[in-house]
Amino acid sequence: MQIAVLLYEGFTALDTVGPYEILSRIPGAEVVFTAAEAGPVRTDMGSLALTADLPLAEVTAPDLLVVPGGPGTEQALGDTAVLDWLRAADATTTWTTSVCSGSLLLAGAGLLRGRRAASHWITLEHLPLFGAEPSTDRVVFDGKYATSAGVSAGIDLALQLAGRLAGDAVAEAIQLVVEYAPDPPYACGSALTAPPTLLASLRASNLVVHA
Amino acid sequence: MQIAVLLYEGFTALDTVGPYEILSRIPGAEVVFTAAEAGPVRTDMGSLALTADLPLAEVTAPDLLVVPGGPGTEQALGDTAVLDWLRAADATTTWTTSVCSGSLLLAGAGLLRGRRAASHWITLEHLPLFGAEPSTDRVVFDGKYATSAGVSAGIDLALQLAGRLAGDAVAEAIQLVVEYAPDPPYACGSALTAPPTLLASLRASNLVVHA
Repeated sequence: MQIAVLLYEGFTALDTVGPYEILSRIPGAEVVFTAAEAGPVRTDMGSLALTADLPLAEVTAPDLLVVPGGPGTEQALGDTAVLDWLRAADATTTWTTSVCSGSLLLAGAGLLRGRRAASHWITLEHLPLFGAEPSTDRVVFDGKYATSAGVSAGIDLALQLAGRLAGDAVAEAIQLVVEYAPDPPYACGSALTAPPTLLASLRASNLVVHA
Repeated sequence: MQIAVLLYEGFTALDTVGPYEILSRIPGAEVVFTAAEAGPVRTDMGSLALTADLPLAEVTAPDLLVVPGGPGTEQALGDTAVLDWLRAADATTTWTTSVCSGSLLLAGAGLLRGRRAASHWITLEHLPLFGAEPSTDRVVFDGKYATSAGVSAGIDLALQLAGRLAGDAVAEAIQLVVEYAPDPPYACGSALTAPPTLLASLRASNLVVHA
């Protein structure tokens, strides 16, 4: 099972590393990080680069696709090479997945028409532009498409996916390996529960993933 | 505020990227990934490399130190250059932190003598070898030393640290930016609640971080 993780300049690191940390531990999984060109690709915050081991041209038939979000989504949406690759890769996948504003890339490639999808709370409203139905659920499965809310939600998506791919026993073991018994210090991790004033200030700030 | 994240061959990716995703969003924070030599450093699963932008020799006075764990911990524990760097870096830090078996590296460098510390559940029992007192808490603060349990616990550690460094309002904003309202599919993410049979099978398997 080949799992392809798309990288592009300005992606959000945890969008990729959360799912990678879970999915790479599924027996038989082979993960490949891929980008337009092989080599280091910078994240949105600038201070970290992940290595793309293969160029997109050499990843032609993945079984599972992981598409991250991040401020770079906007530029990637205008990159026909990326959108063409997403469509071609999707033709061979068993599962096509995204984290955060990555669902905008899937939608922009025409892959989510008529489907329910999640996204970062700040980009959710853009999904209808591409014919997708926005959902405030943290993880959304619709056919072979699995999309999640922002950044850290990719961990929940990947664990659910591991359960479907390899069974609950394997997914439970992986959850224990990564000690995923989260204990967030605050109760404001979702746009559904956060104070409206915080949501408004973040929409205007530079802390946020814009797409 | 310079935040130095140590990389070494065989580290666990999420141990670094979880804290990075939180701490890099603190206003005024500058994160640098560092390793013995600059360049790509492979994670434990082999299919991902993160770039060290600076060699250890050029990171001489960090304000905050993040030390990841992973199967590579064992080899790093025998690397005097790494242990010497940890001691030198710790001399200038306001906070010295670790995720997962990274606490063994801090302990091996002699920095946790007489202190309480967390670690991955499978490496916790080794802490007393270095004079540290193991704790099954997910995040442990003892003086300027903050240590966490395995892999995903680094996110909780970093959010608590963000609150102490920049105040609750900033930390809450960051938690909402990364949509950290976790929803784990299973209840087995902690060694305290997981079935004993699962713990035993993982101790004997290759899924686990060994140190």
